Amino acid sequence: MSLFLEVVPVSEAIEAVRRIAPPAGCEDVPLEDALHRVLARDVCTDIDIPGFDRSTVDGYAVAAAETTGAGEAIPAMLQCRGRVGMGSADAGSVSRGSCKYVPTGGALPEGADAVVMIEHAEQIGDDVLVHRPVAPGENVVFRGEDFRAGKMVLERGRVLSPRDIGVAAAVGADRVSVVTAPRIGIISTGNELVPVAGAPGPGEVRDANSYLAGAFVTERGCHPVYFGIVRDERAVLERAVSSALDRCDAVLVSGGSSKDERDNTAAVIADLGEVLVHGIALAPGKPTIIGTARGKPVIGLPGHPASAFVVLVAIVDHLLAAMRETSVSRRTIRARLTQNVPSTRGREDYIRVSVRDGEATPVFGKSGLLNTLVQSEGLVRIPASSEGFEVSEEVEVILW
Amino acid sequence: MSLFLEVVPVSEAIEAVRRIAPPAGCEDVPLEDALHRVLARDVCTDIDIPGFDRSTVDGYAVAAAETTGAGEAIPAMLQCRGRVGMGSADAGSVSRGSCKYVPTGGALPEGADAVVMIEHAEQIGDDVLVHRPVAPGENVVFRGEDFRAGKMVLERGRVLSPRDIGVAAAVGADRVSVVTAPRIGIISTGNELVPVAGAPGPGEVRDANSYLAGAFVTERGCHPVYFGIVRDERAVLERAVSSALDRCDAVLVSGGSSKDERDNTAAVIADLGEVLVHGIALAPGKPTIIGTARGKPVIGLPGHPASAFVVLVAIVDHLLAAMRETSVSRRTIRARLTQNVPSTRGREDYIRVSVRDGEATPVFGKSGLLNTLVQSEGLVRIPASSEGFEVSEEVEVILW
Repeated sequence: MSLFLEVVPVSEAIEAVRRIAPPAGCEDVPLEDALHRVLARDVCTDIDIPGFDRSTVDGYAVAAAETTGAGEAIPAMLQCRGRVGMGSADAGSVSRGSCKYVPTGGALPEGADAVVMIEHAEQIGDDVLVHRPVAPGENVVFRGEDFRAGKMVLERGRVLSPRDIGVAAAVGADRVSVVTAPRIGIISTGNELVPVAGAPGPGEVRDANSYLAGAFVTERGCHPVYFGIVRDERAVLERAVSSALDRCDAVLVSGGSSKDERDNTAAVIADLGEVLVHGIALAPGKPTIIGTARGKPVIGLPGHPASAFVVLVAIVDHLLAAMRETSVSRRTIRARLTQNVPSTRGREDYIRVSVRDGEATPVFGKSGLLNTLVQSEGLVRIPASSEGFEVSEEVEVILW
Repeated sequence: MSLFLEVVPVSEAIEAVRRIAPPAGCEDVPLEDALHRVLARDVCTDIDIPGFDRSTVDGYAVAAAETTGAGEAIPAMLQCRGRVGMGSADAGSVSRGSCKYVPTGGALPEGADAVVMIEHAEQIGDDVLVHRPVAPGENVVFRGEDFRAGKMVLERGRVLSPRDIGVAAAVGADRVSVVTAPRIGIISTGNELVPVAGAPGPGEVRDANSYLAGAFVTERGCHPVYFGIVRDERAVLERAVSSALDRCDAVLVSGGSSKDERDNTAAVIADLGEVLVHGIALAPGKPTIIGTARGKPVIGLPGHPASAFVVLVAIVDHLLAAMRETSVSRRTIRARLTQNVPSTRGREDYIRVSVRDGEATPVFGKSGLLNTLVQSEGLVRIPASSEGFEVSEEVEVILW
């Protein structure tokens, strides 16, 4: 066994995690609980939307032809035949020379094909003076114009936004079929770790990674299952991973992912299953492990939270998206660099940057500093093929 | 009373909702439940982070001066005095001519001020050959270098991201004080409305707005409280709004917000409190009401979901942010328009666009179409002072 890691490119690591993602389950949930869930089946409309010719304004339903040539000086004059009631099953009809008042959302009477906005008409007694002509279809949505009955409205794989929830409601989907949220086991290993509520003694630090990874997977629609802190002992770690595999769809182990003699994660994964990748050409984040056991992914993350977080963004995000049968949704912006950013060819560098007014400033300082996590707004990825970026160059920032 | 709305500019409407936002409450929650909550009190670190001089690599802890001039040809030779245990209270010391192996995250022995990476050294028995010099502080984070004890680490008003949760854990904040999630009452009014699970008859539509508004406020960290569909009758609506005011911190009423005779929302708000704004120079979304009753905001939204959603984004988002004592967090990108987009001066237009490869294409079609909500990825805001944008112009897209 080599003393050093044999690194693979980031693209290969991403392919590996996608390949080992177990198939997703699905479940029906009430629509009001489906926000940010991934659709497991297309949502189709059961009926024409709208189900009738519908006014989009408050005004007078007319046959458009009756308004031809109408103007301020010579208005068209029509007789008002009353009012269409909202939700009423019968909107009545208009005949030659007549119109009917219709509120926004009301049904068009038979014989009408347009609506004159109330602002462009004047009612005097039963007479309505129309000051502007309307074209057929103006201020009207025709039956089925929005969605035809049977049409697919929202496609499977879509992460449901508030807009999608509203549209699903309109087409009658009071329950939707969504991907079951994967359960992700979270383990921190290291003899130096103490619980967050504890007071670290000399040489000890608090377990930040459990919280960091837990919040990360939660934000991506997964359920974290916390297995706490495990000492750097192979048998103990193996029991913890095994127990996490019993209860979860994937396991994240932070710490013990390098090749120091106290690093047990790779050996434990090999005992329980198979190590596919040990070492990624990624900085920070090189000592990362990708493996499987009992058909489930087991990922070894670096122990330092700042490095672990880059691996979560660069690699684990792809695993979670694949497990949810959707694609990685990244918030990115373009910004100009305020400084040169050198990089080593052959390795993908992720540079933390703060972003202000379209300018990205690298948050340098030692990569092991936690404060870089809160002082930065995102990451600039420098591809392995590049030796870095120059000042003023426009780059893509992954907002994290 | 005028037949038409007296519109105010969008900026004035935003000021109005900010002014009427009731003060936020706060509560303590376990850190693992604090994702996306707004911090109500600063998080400070109780101890120096790290609490000791800490190695950021696997390697040999040395006095940097001992490696001066070391190279591949003439390495510095040091005697290895064992290994620093992770989490061990005593890292021992190194004296002249000696070094100690230290794993990533381990404490530096006394007398050491740098760490030589294992890749740049070679151990033969107890002798360590160092092939590269290190500078003082290299591969080390000194005690308190990340955060000094007592320092503010996360500021109140911050919406907690996974990174923030990780950093809060590192500084011992196992519970945090966050803003209580406002309860938002949601009412839909209209005789044409049927529940989502129902089948609309002629002239009827399903109540999409309750779901749309509910999902919108949920995404912004508020609790929706659903009061269902209310008929267009003033007394009935008044009872519903009053009951929502009893149980909630703010109320959203969709439908009945215009000036048609069936529109009761403004009258109901006036009965219970005060109407501050009725009509906003905003398209779509003009028939919007801003009022207060019993010290709580009551907002009247247009009945059509596509219009209601623009008002949620343009106006209500500011109310919810103010109620949570944070700022509106918008995802925006810059894109080039593929078409001219004309607009009427004096009114803020929100144009739905789809975005591909840095290009924004207006999703035209009638504003009353729901399918524009799912076919668009965002909104382009055309200020009231502008007559529109030209093809190829770079514009800001609010991703929704």
